[in-house]
Parts: sequence; structure tokens; C-alpha cells
Amino acid sequence: MHTGQRAEGGLWLYGLHAVRAALANRRRKSKRLVLTERASRELGKALQGRVRVDVVAAETVGRLLPAGAVHQGVALLCDGLPKRTIDDVLDADSANRRIVLVLDQISDPHNVGAILRTAAAFAVSAVIVQDRNAPPESGALAKAASGALEVVPYVETVNIARALEKLGSSGYWRIALSSDGESPLADALGSRNIALVLGSEGSGIRRLVRERCDIAAFIPVEQAIGSLNVSNAAAIALYASRQGRDLPAPI
Amino acid sequence: MHTGQRAEGGLWLYGLHAVRAALANRRRKSKRLVLTERASRELGKALQGRVRVDVVAAETVGRLLPAGAVHQGVALLCDGLPKRTIDDVLDADSANRRIVLVLDQISDPHNVGAILRTAAAFAVSAVIVQDRNAPPESGALAKAASGALEVVPYVETVNIARALEKLGSSGYWRIALSSDGESPLADALGSRNIALVLGSEGSGIRRLVRERCDIAAFIPVEQAIGSLNVSNAAAIALYASRQGRDLPAPI
Repeated sequence: MHTGQRAEGGLWLYGLHAVRAALANRRRKSKRLVLTERASRELGKALQGRVRVDVVAAETVGRLLPAGAVHQGVALLCDGLPKRTIDDVLDADSANRRIVLVLDQISDPHNVGAILRTAAAFAVSAVIVQDRNAPPESGALAKAASGALEVVPYVETVNIARALEKLGSSGYWRIALSSDGESPLADALGSRNIALVLGSEGSGIRRLVRERCDIAAFIPVEQAIGSLNVSNAAAIALYASRQGRDLPAPI
Repeated sequence: MHTGQRAEGGLWLYGLHAVRAALANRRRKSKRLVLTERASRELGKALQGRVRVDVVAAETVGRLLPAGAVHQGVALLCDGLPKRTIDDVLDADSANRRIVLVLDQISDPHNVGAILRTAAAFAVSAVIVQDRNAPPESGALAKAASGALEVVPYVETVNIARALEKLGSSGYWRIALSSDGESPLADALGSRNIALVLGSEGSGIRRLVRERCDIAAFIPVEQAIGSLNVSNAAAIALYASRQGRDLPAPI
């Protein structure tokens, strides 16, 4: 047994939502499922058919994972997902307005995971990050994403400014979300495909990245008091971008 | 030195934003500030004038707090805030549409703290919770709220259903936010003062609470995949409620 997240040539995912989604994902190569009897019942038999399964005590699951990981009795050893590129995103087909999120130096896996989860809920085509300064695919990221890492393409790129140039030439309207933006968000959306750029809470969007955007927009808040955490800002921007558009109502 | 959060007849707050806001709040009685030299510089001298100050090593700060508290080198012993009631909320004056949030059985202090922070950003008049099943005023709640606990009235009530009846008689339009609601959020807002009701991610809003609402609204998301975490749902609902209204643009 190993304690690292990368072990036996793969990575350990954990938590019920994250593992369920990984097992259901045909693009994810699963190798070994280690779980408690209770987690096995919650997960159901169908998903466990395609992988070697070890039923163990909860402490044994914990020993495979970083200290403090909230694993809910289940860990899955698997390969990382096949890498995707900006070009894959641009080539993808969609009947609806396409939205991509571009994250500039948001390094906390919990924030990025929460953004991935919200991105899935709003049918985002990709979350694009810079490979340095962004969390790699990991158990912590997958857990925070609550299954969404299997659904929303997570594109690691060398240079975000260049990625934005590419999106621009492909007709994406590039919106930098910033509290000192020139336009309220609702007036900045337009009707084209959208690239929404978010920076870290501390330092915001870097100048060179912002210069590649078509407009900088702000979410109107009570300035004396308020700031939004980055995952809340992303949720609001995605909701606003989808307003009056193309998403099905629930049954 | 004590290790509990309630000690010497008060509670320990921690983290730079939370402590700065508490020291700046005239309604908060501060007793003792324990911090590192570095945190003292970051906090500034002005705020430290009104309270006994001990400059110590970071470990000493940590020993005052629950294990794992991200204290950033600063802890403040203070009294709890004076309790407020629904009637205080109803009596308050406002030129703008008033919005209150009603949280039904959201027990995680990180979720409630994140909601308080967003509530401050959208000038919410109060966050109303049931005293059982809701986190008490604590260091963890204040840290997650990032200063907002000092700004947004946090009203603990015995009975949420009765609080909603009171809000209804006072002209508030009561909206239950629920994925199986009957109307998209944008069509459910109306123009009156609003009470937005949110439930826990697991079990939603209890029937008896929902029955006291005027309408149940959903946020349109990709049903196959998506669910929003409760603080993201609150952020979206507050943004939608304030759209086109009364909040000042930033300078």
C-alpha cells in the first residue's frame, strides 16, 4: 500500500460522487477499487464489475490517501484522463452557445473543483488553466468537483494569453471578470460564444491576460463591504450567460 | 490559555478579515487580541487601540484555537454579538428592495459563512436560521464569512415556519429555492421585498417550511449532470434578485 496520490502508475480518487463518476466514465481507465462494505452498497454492484475490488476497513482506505482526505470509505486507483487541448474544444460541436472558463492562477484545488462542479451544471464546454499555477488532476480536485472532472474537459495549457488569442480568432467573445471592469456583467455578454476569464481572489487577472480580452465586466455588489469568492463569481457569471437561453427546464 | 472557542466568558475569532471586521464593529465587545508581530503590522495600529494586545509566536495563537484553524497569526477574544430578532429586521428601514435569506437546516459553518459573505456583497438585510440545526456564532463561522458576520444580522429563531408567516404578513414575497420548483428563478422574483429560502444539499427544504412560501423556484441547470452547492445557489439567487436594481456601480 502507498500513501501518495500518484502510486502504482496512477492516481487515487476518493469520495462517493467522484469515484462513481470516474467508474461511469468510459474515457477513465480504472485499475483498482478499495472500499468499505457500506460504500460498496452505496455505490451499487453495476459500477464495480469492470475493476478489481478490495473490500476493507475504513482505516485501510484512509491509509491510501493524503491525511485528512474525506474519502467516505472509497478510493479508486486509476489513470489520469487523456489530455485535451484548446483545439479539441474549438473542434467540438454544439447547438447552443458555447461557454469556456479560463482560470488565471487560481491554484487552490477546492476553488477549482467547485468551479468545475458549477461548470458542469451550466454545460460549460471546457475549463482552461495554465499548467503551472493550476492544480493538477488529483484526488482533492476530483473530490471538490463532485464528479464534474469526468464531465467537463479540463484543459491544461502552457500559455493562457495565447489560448485567448486562439479563442478570439475562433469568434469567442472574451470577458474578463474583474471588480474594476468597465461594464456591468449583464451588459457585457453579447450573443456569441463566450470565454469567461477569472483570476485569483488575491491578485486578480494578470495584465497580459486581461489585454487579450474584449471587455472587462464587473458583478454589481455593495462596494463598501462586499467581495465574492471566486466560485460564487463563476456561478453568477455562468447563470447570467445562460439566462434566457438553451438550457432545458427540469421535468 | 484555553483551547476551546468559548473561554473566559467569550468566544475566539481568528483570521485577518474576521478579526479586522470584529475590531471595527462598535457593536462587538472585544476583550483581548493575541497575534504575531507580522499580523500586528497587517492589521494596523488604529484598530488595536481599543483592546488589550499580546504579541506572541504563531504557535501560541494556534493553541488558543481548535486544531486546524487557519488563523493567519491572529486571534481575538470577544463577546458574542447582541442577539437580533425577526422584528428587528422588519422594523429596519431601507430605500431599496429588502432581501432576507432563510436557511433551513444548513448546518455546516463553512457553507453558512460563505452565504453570509455573499449576503453582505448583495446588501441582504438578514440571514435567518433555526437555532437548532444551524451553526452558532463561532470562530469557524466568522472565518468563513470573512468579516460579513459583523455586517449582516444573523438571526437565530426557534421556528422558521413561524418566521416565514411573519415575513409574509409584512409583505415579503417568499421564494423557496428548489430544483423541483414550479418556476424558473428569473420569473419568480416579482418586485416586492423578498425572503429567499434555501435548504441543505442533502435533504432540501422541509415540507412545513416550503408550505409557508408563496412560490418554489428553480435555477435552470443541466439536469443530467448538475447540481449547485448551496452557497453558489444563494449567490445566483441574490444576483438575480438585485438585477437591474438599486445597487451602486463601482467607481
